[in-house]
Amino acid sequence: MRKVAIIGVGNSKFGNRQDVNISELSFEAAKPAFQDANITGNDIPFVALGSAGGWYEETLPAVVVGEYCGLTGAGLIRCEAACASGSSAFTTAYFDVASGHDDIALALGVEKMREVDTPTIMELIGRAGFYLWEFHNFGITFPGYYALHATAHMARYGTTEEDLALVSVKNHKYANMNPVAHFHREITVKDALEAPVIAWPLKLYDCCPITDGAAAVVLASEEKVKELKIDTPVWIEGIGYSSGTANLTNRESYVGLTAAVLASKRAFKDAGVGPEDIEVANVHDCFTIAEIMAYEDIGFCKKGEGPKLIREGQTEIGGKIPVNVDGGLKAKGHPIGATGCSMIYELTKQLREEAEPRQRQVPLKNYIALAHNVGGTGHYCYVTILRR
Amino acid sequence: MRKVAIIGVGNSKFGNRQDVNISELSFEAAKPAFQDANITGNDIPFVALGSAGGWYEETLPAVVVGEYCGLTGAGLIRCEAACASGSSAFTTAYFDVASGHDDIALALGVEKMREVDTPTIMELIGRAGFYLWEFHNFGITFPGYYALHATAHMARYGTTEEDLALVSVKNHKYANMNPVAHFHREITVKDALEAPVIAWPLKLYDCCPITDGAAAVVLASEEKVKELKIDTPVWIEGIGYSSGTANLTNRESYVGLTAAVLASKRAFKDAGVGPEDIEVANVHDCFTIAEIMAYEDIGFCKKGEGPKLIREGQTEIGGKIPVNVDGGLKAKGHPIGATGCSMIYELTKQLREEAEPRQRQVPLKNYIALAHNVGGTGHYCYVTILRR
Repeated sequence: MRKVAIIGVGNSKFGNRQDVNISELSFEAAKPAFQDANITGNDIPFVALGSAGGWYEETLPAVVVGEYCGLTGAGLIRCEAACASGSSAFTTAYFDVASGHDDIALALGVEKMREVDTPTIMELIGRAGFYLWEFHNFGITFPGYYALHATAHMARYGTTEEDLALVSVKNHKYANMNPVAHFHREITVKDALEAPVIAWPLKLYDCCPITDGAAAVVLASEEKVKELKIDTPVWIEGIGYSSGTANLTNRESYVGLTAAVLASKRAFKDAGVGPEDIEVANVHDCFTIAEIMAYEDIGFCKKGEGPKLIREGQTEIGGKIPVNVDGGLKAKGHPIGATGCSMIYELTKQLREEAEPRQRQVPLKNYIALAHNVGGTGHYCYVTILRR
Repeated sequence: MRKVAIIGVGNSKFGNRQDVNISELSFEAAKPAFQDANITGNDIPFVALGSAGGWYEETLPAVVVGEYCGLTGAGLIRCEAACASGSSAFTTAYFDVASGHDDIALALGVEKMREVDTPTIMELIGRAGFYLWEFHNFGITFPGYYALHATAHMARYGTTEEDLALVSVKNHKYANMNPVAHFHREITVKDALEAPVIAWPLKLYDCCPITDGAAAVVLASEEKVKELKIDTPVWIEGIGYSSGTANLTNRESYVGLTAAVLASKRAFKDAGVGPEDIEVANVHDCFTIAEIMAYEDIGFCKKGEGPKLIREGQTEIGGKIPVNVDGGLKAKGHPIGATGCSMIYELTKQLREEAEPRQRQVPLKNYIALAHNVGGTGHYCYVTILRR
């Protein structure tokens, strides 16, 4: 395979973005990514747009966003893999450059979710599981799905509500420093434990918010990196993916996600490294229990030892493996199609030692990072390993 | 780039498929494709599912379809490029194998459109253009868009309503022989000219129907072709893509599609052949005028000479360049996400000299074929060149 590098990244402000339409929101991410890579839209022959869609009037947004961002003429594909849509776009752009078909490609993730009311959002997200059986017959929505995982993990491993709260406290702490994050507010364990129950044991602060946002990543071949004189390319060392059953009753267990285990293994194999080599990671913490399961599924600790990692502060900066130091989905926000690209944005900044502000910079030795992006409840998983 | 071959294809019966759900419909295409390639779902590490969606309850169908087709564990991406969604999935699967990331990939296109009423379908398709400006403000839907192209072509080149009718007569003739086609009914020029006007000059038989259907294509690396002892691999020689402006007022002209011209040029360049080398083609005849513009945009004739080609019968079997001898979108049907993959199905069968029935087999010398798939009105275009 050809070597592929990340040469430019951009991230819009995440939040309730009623001030912009989807094209303008995308441009907020695309423009800094182009500047970062020192190119224009005309230099980009292929664009993979990550967007789950269905929230706004432009249901097929790729061409509209493309024109606004000056990308007319490029090949366009909208990529969707539920909450992993951003990573599916990143992977598609990676395939393009790795194959040799193009020397530059853009992965652009965007979601503008807050144009519909909350019950409709809950329904639309609920459909991302197995609609016909689980949503239509049982009315299950995502807090319910992840509550199943949480209670299973508590029953098997003694995980507590306090453990879940600690994930939220950590991620709110880092989001509070992160200029692009949705929430700029620290919380305490007490705040988290006393918050209204959404689906027990998950309470308000165990759940990620509904966020608008965009993130962009420019990918390039090794030849192009040289030609453009890119100082600090960040190389894509491995991408793994897998899927789980649509029907949750066909899963082997609820204490982890098989798709995440398989995707991680493939990514580590391709990159020739192991979980112990990762120095900074972004994982899919749509709910606090999801971050704890991710520690275990990736292999940052043994199965059942995720709660120990968070209790010991090992996933904070200064710990064994800092996770979601941008605030994560939980507090930076989770604009579905943008999330996967926003993880790559954050990790690229970290690997280049450009995290803002400096207190969020993870100290690095080997410069290896990992992104873990889940769609549905393990219906899809993408794991990406980056190295500077 | 690694060489990539098509080693298995399948196509469901196209039509009004109220008898199956989307997973069952997909399986009708996937099963014969797996058998054709002599593999099972377990052998497939990556699936690109082409589906525009929005017609049925499973709005995010990839994982549900994947589980039903025995593909759980594979990486999944749903690809959308409006009416070129099938080709965008095929391209993504191609990138995967060409990059060396996987040795086998599946492109599976599916659309089940007839679950919603016709006015809703018209609205949803209308949104595939530039929703906010053109649909929302002016209420334009697709027959209106293509009527603009038709009147422009008539004004500039003297194209007639009879010329448009001839495209429909040809495509109905071939669909009538094709077992998977939606329509099994020949029509005359008189039928076409006397049919109700939809958007002048386009009448009923100038417009493709609303169709349910699925098509599947298994792609493999050269090594895998040898390992599986595939007798007649069909090689992907070139893929070109481009996009046009979302906003039609920004187009240079309405007598052709710039995206189709650019996509064709790239595909020919990659394949090292020219339009004169193509022996059989499938083009995007969502409306009869679109087939005539495609002749010209691809370069089968000079600009403005498309009507001459159809008048002389040059695009029938026995003519200079047989086009849409499976019935095309016009009469085989146009299940949006499936169409691009169904074109590849047909051309693979033609290149293997397995077209059914034998009267539909195009005589071949150099075994080179071309597929041309448009999304929107030139918002997207994908051109693929195949060679046995």
